[in-house]
Amino acid sequence: MKHALGSAILISSVALSMTAAKPRSEPITPIEAVKVTNPAKVSLGTMLYFEPRLSKSGSISCNSCHNLMTSGADNLPSSIGHGWQLGPINSPTVFNSKYNLAQFWDGRAKDLSEQAGGPIANPGEMGSTHELATETLQSIPEYRALFKKVYGTDKVNIANVQDAIAAFEETLVTPNSRFDQWLKGSDKALTATELRGYETFKNKGCVACHSGPGVGGGMYQKFGLVKPYAGNDHPGAQVGRFAVTKNETDKFVFKVPLLRNIELTAPYFHDGSHWTLEETVKTMANVQLGQTLTDAEAGDIVAFLKTLTGERPKISMPLLPPSTNTTPHPDLTVAPKAATSG
Amino acid sequence: MKHALGSAILISSVALSMTAAKPRSEPITPIEAVKVTNPAKVSLGTMLYFEPRLSKSGSISCNSCHNLMTSGADNLPSSIGHGWQLGPINSPTVFNSKYNLAQFWDGRAKDLSEQAGGPIANPGEMGSTHELATETLQSIPEYRALFKKVYGTDKVNIANVQDAIAAFEETLVTPNSRFDQWLKGSDKALTATELRGYETFKNKGCVACHSGPGVGGGMYQKFGLVKPYAGNDHPGAQVGRFAVTKNETDKFVFKVPLLRNIELTAPYFHDGSHWTLEETVKTMANVQLGQTLTDAEAGDIVAFLKTLTGERPKISMPLLPPSTNTTPHPDLTVAPKAATSG
Repeated sequence: MKHALGSAILISSVALSMTAAKPRSEPITPIEAVKVTNPAKVSLGTMLYFEPRLSKSGSISCNSCHNLMTSGADNLPSSIGHGWQLGPINSPTVFNSKYNLAQFWDGRAKDLSEQAGGPIANPGEMGSTHELATETLQSIPEYRALFKKVYGTDKVNIANVQDAIAAFEETLVTPNSRFDQWLKGSDKALTATELRGYETFKNKGCVACHSGPGVGGGMYQKFGLVKPYAGNDHPGAQVGRFAVTKNETDKFVFKVPLLRNIELTAPYFHDGSHWTLEETVKTMANVQLGQTLTDAEAGDIVAFLKTLTGERPKISMPLLPPSTNTTPHPDLTVAPKAATSG
Repeated sequence: MKHALGSAILISSVALSMTAAKPRSEPITPIEAVKVTNPAKVSLGTMLYFEPRLSKSGSISCNSCHNLMTSGADNLPSSIGHGWQLGPINSPTVFNSKYNLAQFWDGRAKDLSEQAGGPIANPGEMGSTHELATETLQSIPEYRALFKKVYGTDKVNIANVQDAIAAFEETLVTPNSRFDQWLKGSDKALTATELRGYETFKNKGCVACHSGPGVGGGMYQKFGLVKPYAGNDHPGAQVGRFAVTKNETDKFVFKVPLLRNIELTAPYFHDGSHWTLEETVKTMANVQLGQTLTDAEAGDIVAFLKTLTGERPKISMPLLPPSTNTTPHPDLTVAPKAATSG
C-alpha cells in the first residue's frame, strides 16, 4: 500500500514536469494581462478616448489616430489633424505604450497622462484647447456624474480627463502572442523559421535596443547610429530628442519604438517611410548596425517579428451621452496657418 | 385536490391579466429588436462598416460620419470628407435607417445596400473608387476568407461589400424607448408632460408625416410646405428630390427624417442649421403647418421627443486584419477641385 502510493506520487510528479512548461530566460519578456483595479475610471477613460467632442471640430478623437480596431495607430505615414493638416511624424501605437520609458517619439511627455493632454490642444491635431474641451464635457450631465463618481467632483478639469484616458490606455496590452507562449515554455509555439529569425535578431544585435516586455520602448537611440539615415538629410527632418534637450548630441535621437504587433503597424519609422517589414529590417540593420542582411536573414527576422502579434483588447463600444443646449458647437473652420508639431 | 388545482389556475390567470399590458393603437408603432439570421454576414458587415481602408486616405470609414458611439451620425452641420471637404447636407443617422422608404435625403438610393456604395466612391466623402476599395480588401487574406465564407467566392466585389454593410446596418435598431414601453401598455413609462407633448404633437399635425416605427422616414414632403423655409432661399441651397426626378414640383422636397433618438442627433434639418429641439419644433410648426407654438407647447413636444431615445446597439469593436505588402497605400493627397454631393 505504501509502495503503491509512492508510485502514484512519482507518476504524478513526472506528468507535472512534462506538462508544466519551463519559462525561458530571454532579453524579451512576456506581456502580462492587466488587472483593472478601478473599473469606473477605466470606463470613463474609454468614453473619453472615443470622444470626438474633445476636438475643435467635434470629429477627431484619440481613436482617430490610435485606432483600437486596427493597430492602435492609424497606418498612415503621419496623421490627419484639424483641417486635414498632416502631422510631422508617424503616430505610434497606443497598444502596450505603458512599456515606454516616456511618450512621443522624442519622449517629451513623461507618461501617458501627460501625453493625453497634448493632441487635444495641438492646433495641428485635435485643434481644441483644454478650456474648451473641459467646458464641453462640463455641459453634459452624464459626464458630470461620472467625474463626480470617479474623482469626487463634478467640476471637470483637464488633469482628471488626462488621468482617466491614461487609466484606459494602461489596459491596452496585447498578451499571449505566440512569442510569449514560447517564452513561457511552449516549445511548439514557434516554427523553426521563426526561431531562426529570433536567433538572427539576437545575433545581429537588434535585441540590444529591442528588449523587455515591449520589445523596445526602454531607451533612446540615435537613428543613423552607424551609417547616416537618408531620411535625416532633408530640410524639415525631425530632430528627435534634440527638440526637448537642445543638446547637439541628441539630434536624430528617438525613443526606440515597441516591436510588439509590428505586423499591424505599417508604415514604419518615425517618418512612416517604409511600408514592408522586409525593407524595414534591412534599413535598420544597415544604418544602426552597419550590416547587410540577406533576403533569407531579413525573411527569418520578419517571420519572428510576426510572432509578436498578441491578442488585441476586446472592447465594447462606449455609448456617449448627447450634447445639451449649452454644449459648445463644433467648429470646422480652419485658420489660414495653424501650427503643427508631432 | 381538484378544487385546489382550480384555484391555482385562477390565481395564475388573474396575475397574468394584471401584468400583461395592453398594447396601444397609435400612429407611431414600436421598434422591435432584430433577430440576426446570418451572423457571419453581419460580422463581415461590421468589419467593413468600421474599415477606414475603404477610403482613399485610409482614414474615413462609414462610422466616421455615422458614429455608432454617439447618434449614428456625426453631430456636425455637414460631414467632413477627403481633404476636409465639407459635405453639402447633414448626415442622417444610420440608427433605424431600415425604416426609411429610401436612403439619402433625396431618396436617390432605393435601399441600404445601394446607399453603402455611394460615399466610398464620392470624391468629396471617402474619395475612393469601387475598384480601389475592392482591390484593397482583396489584398488581405482574412477578408478573402470571410467573403468566401459568406458569399462562396473569395473574389471581392463591391455588390457583396455593400450587401454585407447593409446587413449590419439592418441590425442597428434602437428598441425599448420609453415611448415604446408606453405603446406596449406601460402606463408609467411617460410623465404627464411627455404625454401632453405627444397629444400636442398629434393635435398640431406633426404626426401626419412623423409616424410609423421610425416616427418618419415613410414619405417625401416639401420643406416649406405652408410658409417658405428661409434656408431654401440662398444660392447653393439643396433642392432635394428635384435633383433625382427633375420635376419642378419636387424642388425642396426631402425625405421626412426619422425622429427616433432625435435627442441625440443635433444639429437638425437637412442643412444642420438648428441646434436645439425647441427652436427646431417651432420652425417646423411654422413652415410646415403655419402654426406658432408657445414655449410651453414646444417644451412639451420636446419632452415627448426625448422619450423616443431607445437602446443603442451594444457593439463589440471588430478587430480588423492587417494590410499586406500588396495592399494599396493610403493616399492623403487632395485634388485641387474635388466635387462634392450629398
